[in-house]
Amino acid sequence: MAGVLDTPDPVLDAPAEAGAAWAAFERLRRGRPRVHVLTSPVAMAISANALLAAGAVPSMTQDPEAVADFVAGTGALVVNLGMLDPLRRAAIPPAVAAARAHGRPWLLDPVKVDRAGGRHRFAVDLLGQGPAAVRANRGEAAVLADGGDPAAYAALAERHGFALAVTGETDFVTDGARAAVLHNGHPLMDRVTAVGCAASALAGAFLAVEEDPFAALRAALLVYGVAGEIAGGIARGPGGFEGQLLDALYGLDETTFKRRARVEA
Amino acid sequence: MAGVLDTPDPVLDAPAEAGAAWAAFERLRRGRPRVHVLTSPVAMAISANALLAAGAVPSMTQDPEAVADFVAGTGALVVNLGMLDPLRRAAIPPAVAAARAHGRPWLLDPVKVDRAGGRHRFAVDLLGQGPAAVRANRGEAAVLADGGDPAAYAALAERHGFALAVTGETDFVTDGARAAVLHNGHPLMDRVTAVGCAASALAGAFLAVEEDPFAALRAALLVYGVAGEIAGGIARGPGGFEGQLLDALYGLDETTFKRRARVEA
Amino acid sequence: MAGVLDTPDPVLDAPAEAGAAWAAFERLRRGRPRVHVLTSPVAMAISANALLAAGAVPSMTQDPEAVADFVAGTGALVVNLGMLDPLRRAAIPPAVAAARAHGRPWLLDPVKVDRAGGRHRFAVDLLGQGPAAVRANRGEAAVLADGGDPAAYAALAERHGFALAVTGETDFVTDGARAAVLHNGHPLMDRVTAVGCAASALAGAFLAVEEDPFAALRAALLVYGVAGEIAGGIARGPGGFEGQLLDALYGLDETTFKRRARVEA
Repeated sequence: MAGVLDTPDPVLDAPAEAGAAWAAFERLRRGRPRVHVLTSPVAMAISANALLAAGAVPSMTQDPEAVADFVAGTGALVVNLGMLDPLRRAAIPPAVAAARAHGRPWLLDPVKVDRAGGRHRFAVDLLGQGPAAVRANRGEAAVLADGGDPAAYAALAERHGFALAVTGETDFVTDGARAAVLHNGHPLMDRVTAVGCAASALAGAFLAVEEDPFAALRAALLVYGVAGEIAGGIARGPGGFEGQLLDALYGLDETTFKRRARVEA
Repeated sequence: MAGVLDTPDPVLDAPAEAGAAWAAFERLRRGRPRVHVLTSPVAMAISANALLAAGAVPSMTQDPEAVADFVAGTGALVVNLGMLDPLRRAAIPPAVAAARAHGRPWLLDPVKVDRAGGRHRFAVDLLGQGPAAVRANRGEAAVLADGGDPAAYAALAERHGFALAVTGETDFVTDGARAAVLHNGHPLMDRVTAVGCAASALAGAFLAVEEDPFAALRAALLVYGVAGEIAGGIARGPGGFEGQLLDALYGLDETTFKRRARVEA
Repeated sequence: MAGVLDTPDPVLDAPAEAGAAWAAFERLRRGRPRVHVLTSPVAMAISANALLAAGAVPSMTQDPEAVADFVAGTGALVVNLGMLDPLRRAAIPPAVAAARAHGRPWLLDPVKVDRAGGRHRFAVDLLGQGPAAVRANRGEAAVLADGGDPAAYAALAERHGFALAVTGETDFVTDGARAAVLHNGHPLMDRVTAVGCAASALAGAFLAVEEDPFAALRAALLVYGVAGEIAGGIARGPGGFEGQLLDALYGLDETTFKRRARVEA
């Protein structure tokens, strides 16, 4: 996620894409979709707070007996593998099954599949169970895509039929046929724990209001990147950054968003 | 919880009740009671921080083997059903048994019993085990009380012999015989995760210093609502609100409290 | 941890020790060591954020099957017993075994061993498994050392061959042969949950860049105490303190650090 650019750029400004992103965000704010998020304890508060700041309503139970009831009543499911433990591993299959049974889109965040073998196999199995979207960092995406370049990412997305976002200094989004590169964000986003996990939670809320998973991922990461950039311009360090990020997400207005959004379509 | 009202109101100002609430809060600050809180991972940090900001000392272990030792050494127990999982479900019975054996008051927060059937049955069973107080939102209270109006709430409280708080835009507190309506608070309290769970934790601390559970619930929610109202007047959004809420709780003084408190007795 | 002293003091200023602490902190910032932290859910976010603010890279999985893979790839391991539950209890032995097999230093934070008997026995067993360092508060240290004075602490450290920090209004660090007393810090550090747990996480990062565990503990607590003192001078209460602490840790410069550090060597 790159620095702040304040002048229009013919390459980086894609007004149609920014407009579509804003329209999706307005649907989210109006519709207040419920999103069920299965995530690590370190990511729970920031993920719930990002959803609430954006206008969505989170639930997070991991009880294998209760999770299907919750997923049935939501607009989307987010499955995050950070700190995967036996309880969450047991909750994911019924949660995914409920999402499929009720036609809810679901997103996979394969946290640290590049660090633990068992988690990698678990993630590969989930890729085959119909996620609408996947958000990963570069190391994680490279392991799943057998390669760390746009062609490998596009091939992975196309093979499984999901939209894929690979986040880093810039964010790359593809569904095999289409691609976008997003240039917003701020370096402090790497200095606060679970900022990426919260991006995945937010992307789940966009899946609930935008039928095209590619457009949903692109919109979520563009909104989040702009909010992060605004927050990074205010915060003195990572301690103040998290609150500023949530406030920027909560207070973001159309003019500011469209002036700042930098997307190569 | 309503907006800020800065002029005295003959209906909403109940000086005796505000004075009793402040006296309880002073006992809490001086006495620094220990409170054991069994709650969801998303609510732990804000609950512990609300207790610390108010002057209480939290503990939170959920280990079924250790929980009775902890409860025995505290002034009150809080049982929150948010994200209920098998470990916490196993820890609650020995925790409640220890509270009863040592004569400690305990509070139940039946989070989302209106969303999951198994959790509802578990909560109903707990209602019969002598909680001193219950704090619920309107949806949860309506399910437990078989009705969403003051008469149904009063009947539920009277039947079981506990004090019940039903929180929302205004907060309603009853023990069957008595009732109060609290008008403080701020809309941002709904935009930060687990703000309600932290209210329950704080109410536990008031139970430890106020023998009358009805007065304890009323005092806790009045103090919390005033702190929330102050925080909401300062914060630009939900990201800054949590810190402002804790600071307001920590720094609240008698004059400000009594000027702002709005309680219909 | 004492108040702010702004004038040099011949007893409290030990320039060589402050210089060594700063040099270690610079190695941490440059080297960005990975640290694996097994801690309680209430302490996870602040611990991860303290490590990130200081420049280290945290991981936190507690899955017994994955933890050895993570520990093998880190520079140090931190084992915190707060809210010890069956899952973490199962993860600690393979984590410690991996640390020993790969020659990684590890630190024990025996949270509340003075409150729960089973946890005490577990901690005593861990003391015999070669931790490089132990950080405890006075109540916990007194139980492990069979006494609450410097001589008892020194005897405990010497018997097991680790460095021991006992934190409180002042921090005492010893390895049996050497000792230091640290005078920085701020009372608000006791009004935010898991500030001490985050100190232990940070100490793990210093163990990864400083071979002498006594020097690592002294440096970590000195840096943390100075950051806390700066934060306490800015924050209006505990709600703003946590963010200010992280920002102070992130932005701390050599001149400010050496001017403020108060260590009796």
